[in-house]
Amino acid sequence: VRIVLVGFGNVGRTLAAILADPSPYAGLKGLDVSVVAITTGSHGTLANPAGIALGPALASFERAGGFTPADPDHSGLATLEVLTRLDYDAVVEMSPLDVVRRGEPAISHVRAALERGRHVVAANKGPVAWSYRSLVELAARTGARFLHEATVMDGVPVFNLARHGLRGATVLSLEGILNSTTNWVLGAVEQGRGVEEAVAEARRAGVAEADPSLDLDGWDAAVKLAALANAVMGGELLPEDVERRTLASLDLDRVRGCPARGRRLKMVAAARRDGGRILGRVEAREIPLDHPFALVEGTSSILRITTDLAGSISVVEEAPDLRTTAYGVLSDLMSLAD
Amino acid sequence: VRIVLVGFGNVGRTLAAILADPSPYAGLKGLDVSVVAITTGSHGTLANPAGIALGPALASFERAGGFTPADPDHSGLATLEVLTRLDYDAVVEMSPLDVVRRGEPAISHVRAALERGRHVVAANKGPVAWSYRSLVELAARTGARFLHEATVMDGVPVFNLARHGLRGATVLSLEGILNSTTNWVLGAVEQGRGVEEAVAEARRAGVAEADPSLDLDGWDAAVKLAALANAVMGGELLPEDVERRTLASLDLDRVRGCPARGRRLKMVAAARRDGGRILGRVEAREIPLDHPFALVEGTSSILRITTDLAGSISVVEEAPDLRTTAYGVLSDLMSLAD
Repeated sequence: VRIVLVGFGNVGRTLAAILADPSPYAGLKGLDVSVVAITTGSHGTLANPAGIALGPALASFERAGGFTPADPDHSGLATLEVLTRLDYDAVVEMSPLDVVRRGEPAISHVRAALERGRHVVAANKGPVAWSYRSLVELAARTGARFLHEATVMDGVPVFNLARHGLRGATVLSLEGILNSTTNWVLGAVEQGRGVEEAVAEARRAGVAEADPSLDLDGWDAAVKLAALANAVMGGELLPEDVERRTLASLDLDRVRGCPARGRRLKMVAAARRDGGRILGRVEAREIPLDHPFALVEGTSSILRITTDLAGSISVVEEAPDLRTTAYGVLSDLMSLAD
Repeated sequence: VRIVLVGFGNVGRTLAAILADPSPYAGLKGLDVSVVAITTGSHGTLANPAGIALGPALASFERAGGFTPADPDHSGLATLEVLTRLDYDAVVEMSPLDVVRRGEPAISHVRAALERGRHVVAANKGPVAWSYRSLVELAARTGARFLHEATVMDGVPVFNLARHGLRGATVLSLEGILNSTTNWVLGAVEQGRGVEEAVAEARRAGVAEADPSLDLDGWDAAVKLAALANAVMGGELLPEDVERRTLASLDLDRVRGCPARGRRLKMVAAARRDGGRILGRVEAREIPLDHPFALVEGTSSILRITTDLAGSISVVEEAPDLRTTAYGVLSDLMSLAD
């Protein structure tokens, strides 16, 4: 598979490092991937139809903070030009999520590839959250595949579980703890820290991003919930239609007082059917200590899927790292061979 | 799909009831199944190439405690004769597990169908636990499929999760609470009941079978662990090679003393790689109360899958019923259409 990487942040570089040397991972033996372009929003582009040498590209990117004309495969093409002009089999969309632009420019990237019949593996949640149905229809028309396993819960195969494991069952509702930063910060607040102090700690621990507002305002969870509702419940839920409670709106004394009452306050993202529609909320819930959600600490996450026929199934991800997100992409790349 | 049902116990009858009237389940709309034979070990056989009327068959079976010559489609064929002589597309193996006979006669049933190139959907764990590799090889030779989602954790798609969701990842170890009866009885013992009293209660609650010894002796968990090790870890673990602790070997005071020390005693089935082999154990473990395994109550179950690339993923099934096991079979039947 000849692939284009869009975005070269933490996940992209972790993926490139695994692809540069997959030998420690026995299961990747069958993976035959050649990266023919790496393109970023503001850190330059590399392109080489014979395949980019990933080790040197990684080293040079980290040294210079981006690709420069000094790189052997340096290209002047912008991302959309790469996707519409170059030859490739699949694109891996890993550009940063832009909530204000409602998933753009990632949606245009995905569309450009699908229109040419090229497969898409999305780690960016925007296209699944804002344009799922039209992109799936486009893919069906051109014979391409639109996969997006890494968009929610990193490498936990929530979308594959629903697609391959819940055939014939109807998902009635979903609820989960889907945002690491909020969950991490709530844990620290529970132990007595202030929100700002906790956020600073989360940033130092590499959990929160430089600007964690998308997490703290519930946008990250709302976008993930919309992605799940669209792909797993067959709905059309937009992130902006998800009712959001922000971390700032919480009474910190209530957070701290919960454990004494045998409870913990958690931010839960929940979607349920209401007639033909799907309603979504990101809300603070008091969880009893003997409920599985109460055990989800720090960067771990959980999703509970309630169905008509298959009962109630939960999946839990424990302490993911960058490799598990990169794995979500790898898993999709391996599925393309089907 | 023209199917044969082997075994007509609780799961078989629940499946037949759903197939008789799938209209409450929107997701089953695409399911096109005709039951051309129902065959049991000692409760008779029905066969009709045009499809058995399932409603009347269920009613008559429950009235008479089996099929009788009074049934319109009554047949004198034994199970193996049905499988080798009649025409069908797939067999659903739901006969009772026989540990003493190491999975027979179910293994012969599966083999008879696969040899004729007919698909197999197994709810009986024996074939996956004792003969996985040879059956998979046979299926590959004849172009048939051997599916077995309902064998472990009912309708929770553990095998589909591993097959479709963990591509490229290597499963390093598995651990789970896989046997309902033991878990239910341990909970009652913790609350002060004796083992016999608790078993009697479990029987009355419909959790334990009339003869629960396979559960209490750890055989059921060992067979499930072997099935998982074979199909998910690519090993060749036999149930008799799983080290087993029985419930009878536990010190009841230790079970009851655990909560005071912030722990619960749970029977955990665990498999791990040891060089080229896979080692399996069913053992009593003291689980801290803030560990997800401590929350698994009664008939619920959990499986934790630790991988090289995808991190550590757990799946939890909450309070299954007969319908969720029947769903495991339905899910496989729907996969056959791929």
